[in-house]
Amino acid sequence: MSDVWGQNLKISLFGESHGEGIGVVIDGVPSGLKIDMDFIKSEMARRAPGKNKLSTKRKEADEPRILSGVFNGTTTGAAICAVIENTDTKSKDYSELKKKMRPGHSDYAAYLKYVGFNDYRGGGHFSGRITAPIVFAGAVAKQLLAQKGIRICSWIKSIEDIEDVSLDKINVDEVLMDAVQGSDFPVLTKELGEKMQERIVEASMDCDSLGGVVQCAAINIPGGIGSPFFRSVESVLASILFSVPAVKGVEFGEGFNISKLRGSQANDEMYYDADGNVKTYTNNNGGLTGGITNGMPITFNVAIKPTPSISKEQRTIDIEAKENTTLVIHGRHDPCIVHRVIPVIESVTAIALAELIL
Amino acid sequence: MSDVWGQNLKISLFGESHGEGIGVVIDGVPSGLKIDMDFIKSEMARRAPGKNKLSTKRKEADEPRILSGVFNGTTTGAAICAVIENTDTKSKDYSELKKKMRPGHSDYAAYLKYVGFNDYRGGGHFSGRITAPIVFAGAVAKQLLAQKGIRICSWIKSIEDIEDVSLDKINVDEVLMDAVQGSDFPVLTKELGEKMQERIVEASMDCDSLGGVVQCAAINIPGGIGSPFFRSVESVLASILFSVPAVKGVEFGEGFNISKLRGSQANDEMYYDADGNVKTYTNNNGGLTGGITNGMPITFNVAIKPTPSISKEQRTIDIEAKENTTLVIHGRHDPCIVHRVIPVIESVTAIALAELIL
Amino acid sequence: MSDVWGQNLKISLFGESHGEGIGVVIDGVPSGLKIDMDFIKSEMARRAPGKNKLSTKRKEADEPRILSGVFNGTTTGAAICAVIENTDTKSKDYSELKKKMRPGHSDYAAYLKYVGFNDYRGGGHFSGRITAPIVFAGAVAKQLLAQKGIRICSWIKSIEDIEDVSLDKINVDEVLMDAVQGSDFPVLTKELGEKMQERIVEASMDCDSLGGVVQCAAINIPGGIGSPFFRSVESVLASILFSVPAVKGVEFGEGFNISKLRGSQANDEMYYDADGNVKTYTNNNGGLTGGITNGMPITFNVAIKPTPSISKEQRTIDIEAKENTTLVIHGRHDPCIVHRVIPVIESVTAIALAELIL
Amino acid sequence: MSDVWGQNLKISLFGESHGEGIGVVIDGVPSGLKIDMDFIKSEMARRAPGKNKLSTKRKEADEPRILSGVFNGTTTGAAICAVIENTDTKSKDYSELKKKMRPGHSDYAAYLKYVGFNDYRGGGHFSGRITAPIVFAGAVAKQLLAQKGIRICSWIKSIEDIEDVSLDKINVDEVLMDAVQGSDFPVLTKELGEKMQERIVEASMDCDSLGGVVQCAAINIPGGIGSPFFRSVESVLASILFSVPAVKGVEFGEGFNISKLRGSQANDEMYYDADGNVKTYTNNNGGLTGGITNGMPITFNVAIKPTPSISKEQRTIDIEAKENTTLVIHGRHDPCIVHRVIPVIESVTAIALAELIL
Repeated sequence: MSDVWGQNLKISLFGESHGEGIGVVIDGVPSGLKIDMDFIKSEMARRAPGKNKLSTKRKEADEPRILSGVFNGTTTGAAICAVIENTDTKSKDYSELKKKMRPGHSDYAAYLKYVGFNDYRGGGHFSGRITAPIVFAGAVAKQLLAQKGIRICSWIKSIEDIEDVSLDKINVDEVLMDAVQGSDFPVLTKELGEKMQERIVEASMDCDSLGGVVQCAAINIPGGIGSPFFRSVESVLASILFSVPAVKGVEFGEGFNISKLRGSQANDEMYYDADGNVKTYTNNNGGLTGGITNGMPITFNVAIKPTPSISKEQRTIDIEAKENTTLVIHGRHDPCIVHRVIPVIESVTAIALAELIL
Repeated sequence: MSDVWGQNLKISLFGESHGEGIGVVIDGVPSGLKIDMDFIKSEMARRAPGKNKLSTKRKEADEPRILSGVFNGTTTGAAICAVIENTDTKSKDYSELKKKMRPGHSDYAAYLKYVGFNDYRGGGHFSGRITAPIVFAGAVAKQLLAQKGIRICSWIKSIEDIEDVSLDKINVDEVLMDAVQGSDFPVLTKELGEKMQERIVEASMDCDSLGGVVQCAAINIPGGIGSPFFRSVESVLASILFSVPAVKGVEFGEGFNISKLRGSQANDEMYYDADGNVKTYTNNNGGLTGGITNGMPITFNVAIKPTPSISKEQRTIDIEAKENTTLVIHGRHDPCIVHRVIPVIESVTAIALAELIL
Repeated sequence: MSDVWGQNLKISLFGESHGEGIGVVIDGVPSGLKIDMDFIKSEMARRAPGKNKLSTKRKEADEPRILSGVFNGTTTGAAICAVIENTDTKSKDYSELKKKMRPGHSDYAAYLKYVGFNDYRGGGHFSGRITAPIVFAGAVAKQLLAQKGIRICSWIKSIEDIEDVSLDKINVDEVLMDAVQGSDFPVLTKELGEKMQERIVEASMDCDSLGGVVQCAAINIPGGIGSPFFRSVESVLASILFSVPAVKGVEFGEGFNISKLRGSQANDEMYYDADGNVKTYTNNNGGLTGGITNGMPITFNVAIKPTPSISKEQRTIDIEAKENTTLVIHGRHDPCIVHRVIPVIESVTAIALAELIL
Repeated sequence: MSDVWGQNLKISLFGESHGEGIGVVIDGVPSGLKIDMDFIKSEMARRAPGKNKLSTKRKEADEPRILSGVFNGTTTGAAICAVIENTDTKSKDYSELKKKMRPGHSDYAAYLKYVGFNDYRGGGHFSGRITAPIVFAGAVAKQLLAQKGIRICSWIKSIEDIEDVSLDKINVDEVLMDAVQGSDFPVLTKELGEKMQERIVEASMDCDSLGGVVQCAAINIPGGIGSPFFRSVESVLASILFSVPAVKGVEFGEGFNISKLRGSQANDEMYYDADGNVKTYTNNNGGLTGGITNGMPITFNVAIKPTPSISKEQRTIDIEAKENTTLVIHGRHDPCIVHRVIPVIESVTAIALAELIL
């Protein structure tokens, strides 16, 4: 279902939601890394639905099975293949979709792409589930980065129009990350998080869905990583962030807001602190100048569109009858996937940074 | 100064602003394409500074010389190499910069990257000038796309807080593109464009700089282009958009605004029009669902940060003396590069779409 | 244990002989190809040991399990992942090897490569078994090529100094291929084949091993495939042929013999035959000129070195004690793998040709 | 005219023999390497024709001009572009070739490849001249390798059936290389070299051409370089060796001869020498086991076919008239290119080893 990503850390995804299994092959992890399976499983559990009332009840057995590349818990330097068997599938939910195209989904675009091969969607289905092996790979990448003290954390910045406070982009640290990562619904301000969750339940009861913005930060990354132009950190990060289903926007540092500032306001002036480390007074550039890291925290935001599968009636087309029609999507669907996408955003970020650092 | 971009259309950039020449090698252009040199030169002229009072007076001879891959005006299928000699350089503008790091620029990050090789910056300099060969490559890609009726156009959506009207993302067509592309300062609403230009002059006289947002659209692109995940159209486009210096954000369709909508508002419902073509009532997804084109216009916005080089005094560090200091940047610098980046945005978009279609 | 091969048809291998499983991910197979599992299993069976007295008795369950990319027996266009579980392993055969390096094997080179991670060999072992997933991928590639009438066949040209007759490189056709491919020990001249098999048994009883040369041909491949220099057919083919363990030489057409001819003898003069097809009077170039196919059969030879694992005593080093010592390898080992490598050579050839043609 | 080669050291070739210029872009050379232009020019001079009576009198100005990536004689880490202008071209030599296909050349294969674009050959011509920028890149790679003490040398092993003595593959050292590399016609045995040169002159006077075998060795390369399968040293080396025009065979160590040996004869038994270094008693594997270097000299042979352009009359086809005809090639052509290909073989070997080591 995908291409191979990366030059130093090659990631190959495979699998369809309703096939036998999904998985990933990771090529380029050096030998000698101790694989912490508990950490990997906890990372994948963050993603699994059925954990709280906000998500669908479809259970997934996300237990990854490592087929190669790890011996006695340590990487061998060989390609690592992890497979997740598909166990809980309910085909009948998808029967009407063969003819009626779901708005906001890739149904019609995929039909055009694979025209002539009618059963593709029955066998495949562009599913968010493929993010499970991405989280596996991200967990391995996180462990690689942890060896160098690099840490990544993301949280929900907004749901619909409920927006959390601005991030202090200079002082992102482990304390903030510990506080945030402890929760299933990570936010900077607990009360706003509760408001957001209420809003999600409300939308769900209205047979509708919501989107939001995920904010992400990476700290302790050395300066000098990345190259100008094609291997800029923004390029590499954005290319994998936009692979995640439902991502419609990525902005670094102050992002689109920086376009409203003047140079004198936007420029991050520099200084040596008391320990002789180079710091900036502000961090509007999100730790990236000229595509290269400068040592300050890397920060960015990712826009997640509202889940397309809603149970309200929608106008659409019937590609068999070639006529206009309507559609009501039944079955279990997340009213909001923003909190589920948090570990995925962290994972692809870890993969991208490992790619740049290896 | 960069890596190689692309799998089907490989782009190799080379050159430093103050070296002998800059250029590009393009691999993958099929044989038989008639190269329109007048078109290429006019595209490159859109980029060249010294054309109006908004830009720097530094003249560049952007005349490209094609060394290979074109015979009697037609591509041979071989790698195309185009070189632009560097003629107008004034080294003395940059002397103070060897020790003092310019805020907002890549000076410090590059220093960390190339530590041990002190003269890099003197010889190289991460310059916006390298976009000249990018525009050459984009002009070739545009001609490839034109063979299939595909057209790309971009304009200025905002400068500082002056924002133009929303784009009607359903009805982007050649008429709109003709109207927009005729101008040196392309906008949707002429009067707002004039306001923006006045604001730029005002900022310049205040020794400051401005940023803005560029909006871009591509029409007549067939549905079914792109693949889910790693080869999504958003991935491929964003990876090359973020290569352009000064880009800090990319959003598709409604972008970050889509995160504020509900599914019932965001979903682009479908219908067959009178001619039996599939259309959508809205186009919040910017023509892309599941990473694949659906036939509607592809639209996206790109955030451009204000030019870092301003002549106001700024606080910074002296890396030789290892102490805090201040810096005033002399010489000629653009107060705003947003209008200059327009042809560059179109070029990388053309390259990305050609990559996906070839 | 490997990299990713290919640009259009990407092959990712994973797995160690004594890990949980081995497999392959194939990316780039177009949708709509009907997968013939019987054909795939028969191809893999050609490779499996324990079939005759010439090979080891170690049984392998080579039953491949397709996890993705195939639906209702037809490819979906998505990445195909096939896994083969490891069932029959006897670890105790390898205990002495941790310290004593086996001559002719990669033990010492691998030790240098992975120094610091002592257990690599215990967990991994650069095994010929990894060729099982290669044969799976090759079987898929063969089916792709068959759609275009392209057929590949290889046979044993020599074992030790017993050499078969020269191949008539102009008249390679399906008749010859049918005759050859029917056998477990494919040769051009049956009697010489029997002599070769006797020689193998004799060497085995002498606790020694033999090598040989495999000859391969591909017919009905259209002219114009391949590009000069880096994407020459020879380049692409050789890069994957030399990936196969034990291959020490590759030559195309007359190969090293062509270096002994004069131009007037070596050049393949051309003519139009009665049907207006372009043919050559000779085919010393093996169907390849300037790295591009010319329509004549592609022919080449591959040198296979004698199996390094012999039970004679050998001088070697003990890397733990850091002293010179001797070694006797016990256990079951093939006295000759040339016949087993036949389907592997065909497989990688199929993969390479599919890569060039897709 | 070609693809991009390499993952760590990316090489992009461009240019046609009769276009404006030819050149190369090298991406991945670390900063800080002092570029020795005298060395580069002397390497390129080894390749240039017109140096002795054995080669054509066509003069080439092979003076490379470095456009980027080098500042004050030292690499900056940026992409290095070198261009060689085409100065001495005589078009009229090639006029008859538009219709008559030269046997042994790529004319017909290229015609099939580029059908529909008739003037390709007029503008391009798959020429051996493109090896000039390859030698430039090889000279840079050699300097990179020299930093680690790695040295490469090749010489003529045979011309037609005149064959030099076997190489002592254990004791290849700098002394042997110095002795060999001093000559324009490098061989191990001076007298045999003179015999070979006489044979070449004789063939030339007979309006014919000769081929031969080039032998190559690399010493002081650390063990542990390369990976099993797709990134085996043999794979990487062979993929670039077979890019060189006229190469029809590559064999490592004993090569095809190893297929005639028994395991007990072929295996390279190991021992610790007096200094505690690991050596082998023999080196039939050419320093490579399991695709990985073991520290012994890497040795291999390359078969070069006789130059296709001979002035004897040859039978061929006229693709315009679509009939059988004959052809006599006029003009200046090398009777033998084996000595000219020596620096090219060394160059691509250097590029491949740098690729593996970087």
